[in-house]
Amino acid sequence: MKKTIAIDMDGVMADTEPHFFDYYEQETGIRLTRQDIAGMTEYDAFKGKGHGMVNKPGFFRTLPLMEGAVEAVKSLMEDFEVYIVSAAMEFPLSLPEKYEWLAEHFPFIHWRNIVFCGDKSIIKTDFLIDDHCKNLDYCHGKPIMFDAFHNTNLHHHQRVNSWAEVLELLEGERAAKVKN
Amino acid sequence: MKKTIAIDMDGVMADTEPHFFDYYEQETGIRLTRQDIAGMTEYDAFKGKGHGMVNKPGFFRTLPLMEGAVEAVKSLMEDFEVYIVSAAMEFPLSLPEKYEWLAEHFPFIHWRNIVFCGDKSIIKTDFLIDDHCKNLDYCHGKPIMFDAFHNTNLHHHQRVNSWAEVLELLEGERAAKVKN
Repeated sequence: MKKTIAIDMDGVMADTEPHFFDYYEQETGIRLTRQDIAGMTEYDAFKGKGHGMVNKPGFFRTLPLMEGAVEAVKSLMEDFEVYIVSAAMEFPLSLPEKYEWLAEHFPFIHWRNIVFCGDKSIIKTDFLIDDHCKNLDYCHGKPIMFDAFHNTNLHHHQRVNSWAEVLELLEGERAAKVKN
Repeated sequence: MKKTIAIDMDGVMADTEPHFFDYYEQETGIRLTRQDIAGMTEYDAFKGKGHGMVNKPGFFRTLPLMEGAVEAVKSLMEDFEVYIVSAAMEFPLSLPEKYEWLAEHFPFIHWRNIVFCGDKSIIKTDFLIDDHCKNLDYCHGKPIMFDAFHNTNLHHHQRVNSWAEVLELLEGERAAKVKN
């Protein structure tokens, strides 16, 4: 049986950071940089405007792709059972938008493998690739922390800085599969 | 820590059977009964019309409540961590409709405890209350089969015929909690 991987959407498959910067600039006229907000929570980084942005129609539908995400997910699916696990329930508008976004950018992912949830504590997979420690801290498998401004000062999980590093990290698991 | 229960929506919290009968009658002029379709799959029972119905706007939003569901879920939440786990991904239209249906009938359930998924194989809770063996067969905890026309001939899981029977079955688990 293939090992299972849960993959987060925002900040992992989708590049939320520049999108937040764009929305914040439209609202305030100020262009933030990664340096301005490194180590801050999303709420503090955007002075409470974050939740306003994510409730605007279109925010989730128009998120840019994280570099290398499509190719990497496709590649992982060859050797792993991949689930997309997104904490979408806090923002009800995001439900159809995230579904359509996945259909556009990742049409090769079956609906059986998509999960929109609240907290992720009852998700049981062998690996969780996520940018938020609130999810990684309680996962049942091996946590893999995707680099983001808000986790830059947290070091208690294995960090990956790109999808290339995800593939590199999981290469050994593929090799193990071939040996079995 | 409270034990966890995953609760299915269609056929458990929502009474899908009479709703299917209504839609089928509107389409064909024929009123089916439980006897007509006992033991059949949903697909066979509605001669392939089932999937047509569930893709119609409003189908999931207007589902009637299963008798006793609201009071029982509220009661279980006193002693268990209750998650609503619905296989909604097959029918994308159902995502906002199910969210709104829950907000109307179960406003006391937090978004953190709602999961819309495809298959339920990566959901790990101590109990799963569901009407479909495709979910119950692979669950990580104790499966509890809510009676439905399509599972009437299946006897490999503990069956409950009503929400009153769910509460009765789980009474021992509450008592155990008090003793600890």
